[in-house]
Amino acid sequence: MTPANSNQPVMTDVTTHWDDKFCDRCQVMGSSIIREILKFTQMPDVISFAGGLPAPELFPVREFEEACAHVLRTSGEQALQYGLTEGFTPLKEALAEKMQKYGVPSEPHNILLTNGSQQALDLIGRIFIGAGDTIVTGKPTYLGALQAWKVYRPKIIGIPVDDEGMQMDALEEVLKRESPKFIYVLPNFHNPMGITLTRERREKLVKLAARYGIPIVEDDPYGELRFEGEDITPIMVMHKENVLYLSTFSKILAPGIRLGWVVAPENIIRKLVQAKQATDLHTSTFIQMIAHDIVKRGILKAHSKEIRKVYGERRHIMTSAMEEHFPEGVKWTKPEGGLFMWTIAPEHLNTMDLLESAVAEKVAYVPGSVFFPDGSGTNTLRLNFSNARSELIPEGIERLGRVLKRAIG
Amino acid sequence: MTPANSNQPVMTDVTTHWDDKFCDRCQVMGSSIIREILKFTQMPDVISFAGGLPAPELFPVREFEEACAHVLRTSGEQALQYGLTEGFTPLKEALAEKMQKYGVPSEPHNILLTNGSQQALDLIGRIFIGAGDTIVTGKPTYLGALQAWKVYRPKIIGIPVDDEGMQMDALEEVLKRESPKFIYVLPNFHNPMGITLTRERREKLVKLAARYGIPIVEDDPYGELRFEGEDITPIMVMHKENVLYLSTFSKILAPGIRLGWVVAPENIIRKLVQAKQATDLHTSTFIQMIAHDIVKRGILKAHSKEIRKVYGERRHIMTSAMEEHFPEGVKWTKPEGGLFMWTIAPEHLNTMDLLESAVAEKVAYVPGSVFFPDGSGTNTLRLNFSNARSELIPEGIERLGRVLKRAIG
Repeated sequence: MTPANSNQPVMTDVTTHWDDKFCDRCQVMGSSIIREILKFTQMPDVISFAGGLPAPELFPVREFEEACAHVLRTSGEQALQYGLTEGFTPLKEALAEKMQKYGVPSEPHNILLTNGSQQALDLIGRIFIGAGDTIVTGKPTYLGALQAWKVYRPKIIGIPVDDEGMQMDALEEVLKRESPKFIYVLPNFHNPMGITLTRERREKLVKLAARYGIPIVEDDPYGELRFEGEDITPIMVMHKENVLYLSTFSKILAPGIRLGWVVAPENIIRKLVQAKQATDLHTSTFIQMIAHDIVKRGILKAHSKEIRKVYGERRHIMTSAMEEHFPEGVKWTKPEGGLFMWTIAPEHLNTMDLLESAVAEKVAYVPGSVFFPDGSGTNTLRLNFSNARSELIPEGIERLGRVLKRAIG
Repeated sequence: MTPANSNQPVMTDVTTHWDDKFCDRCQVMGSSIIREILKFTQMPDVISFAGGLPAPELFPVREFEEACAHVLRTSGEQALQYGLTEGFTPLKEALAEKMQKYGVPSEPHNILLTNGSQQALDLIGRIFIGAGDTIVTGKPTYLGALQAWKVYRPKIIGIPVDDEGMQMDALEEVLKRESPKFIYVLPNFHNPMGITLTRERREKLVKLAARYGIPIVEDDPYGELRFEGEDITPIMVMHKENVLYLSTFSKILAPGIRLGWVVAPENIIRKLVQAKQATDLHTSTFIQMIAHDIVKRGILKAHSKEIRKVYGERRHIMTSAMEEHFPEGVKWTKPEGGLFMWTIAPEHLNTMDLLESAVAEKVAYVPGSVFFPDGSGTNTLRLNFSNARSELIPEGIERLGRVLKRAIG
């Protein structure tokens, strides 16, 4: 087609008016380095361990097609119409039932559907964090949470995380002097570290939180992706009135549908619903009905079993390759589930600086410092083992080994 | 299934810890009265003119099914995977082309996909509105915009709107003494009034905005739904560097997919992308690819033609019924497009108080005062003519006429 005004200049950066209209909030906004790295590494010959992407070849594409057809044929008008902010009721019922299996007695009114867990994090920030309020996270912690909350201007206190999860002694020291709005934890296969909070520490966390009157935000996107060891009771089961629990379809079904959920006491859900209503009215009715159809057909169970098998194999391939190719002085976690592995290089290495050499060697990772609220952890890096095909992992690790060897010298 | 702890109490409202953790922002949050009324009027025998819902029987359900199958068969892995915050590139290209047809030279980098226009409104508030900043809207204006922005604590100045749109003299008076972050206008078939901003006023608006250096937010969800009269040039075409333009698939395709878009200079898009990334990472890849498939097949054109025909008929049926059944002293607009009609009752009537009698008569509307930033307009009401089936409209208007007659006495 011919544009109506093809000889007019195309819209470009203008600095008139707009720039001086931005509010202060913009100063703390930035683009996620992970998403920047992702763009950078989408060259076909780079082996990327950078993103947090599931294995796309496992997506249940045919089942999606069946679900779409079924939803549209049986309830097309409803699926394409506006819906309630709270979410599609039958899906909330199915999720309440799913949560009950974990030992969390919950009803549909304890559940809110969100556009992935990222939106739940934003809504939590929106209702709890005023400028200058304290919140507690791990150090390191999920970058998306830091990004979601930074804009609300909290003081973020990072508690060191080791192989057993967040250090409870350090947490107690903080709670003695601060009264945070909440404590944010990733209990299972922590992003970025891949470690799991032990049962002992969970029990200690629940006690500390109750003693000091601080709510817990339990972010559990990977809980169903355990390929080794035994499940540990969710924190919410230990003290349900004091926990706001988040999960998502992104890792057990598909992230491209952007669908997550929150489980919380009803008064919290009500506030989150008000916040969400002003933000985007509601989550896609169509997407929720497709997810409901897939849940009701029992597809998730078989599908997550397959994911666990493949991710377990890939983690094993990766750690074996690391043992072979990584130089002495480099350590890593051995996750029992999830998508991520954590690597600690000797202290003098700066993994942010090293990324350029890595990309030159056609391998990519995420520098660990981005996950630290205080920017420390400069000698760490995060590796994803779910996305790259099994046959590429050893080659990628070998390339990264070369980079590390050269840097250590 | 048997819940693991079926004898435990279900989570209920707890007031421990959480309530005193809410931040001040929560005080200005509330549930939209429209969504509350919608719940109230979903009883099957109520004829509702309250919601802003499209006619569901016109949704192109079969075309959606074809698009889903096509997308999943040809690009299933991509459709279900994470995507870029900016949006699915081919859809941005198609929308840039669509905008060019309106006379707005734009490129994909001038476009951001959002979860409906409501998210665009929120993101605009997020990047522009600091506490105490002034913004200008119509009086009345779209309730969702007021809801989206209230949380950022602006001072909202409402400019009176008459049959020709926002009053430019009143706007100029305000611009002489205030420096708002932006001027928000609904140029076509204004929600709630149904009126259209005349060409003369658009030209005046563009001049005033340029003279005082104030950007314009042009919200145009209904522009393609004109069933009478002639299209008027979009404001963005008149001064593209100074306008941020919003539109949506909600009214020309289906609201249940939650998909809208923003057209703006690239530096604004960049800020909006950063804001969106922290909010929900990106809009559903799957939904964007389905919309792209539907756009590329040329389905929108035929579909919006059908919508225009039906909505035009319904508006005509409604105004004819109003002439027959509404008492003297009640006036209404005669929209040339869109979904809404505005009714002005004698000054002493309070349409909020009257709603109870209306629902008792099994008819519903939205009291007009909710659309006024200052809560005035207590004798006005909004009627939707797109959702109720044609054969029900006369009966609904007759019922409302009885309510109005009794109230006028």
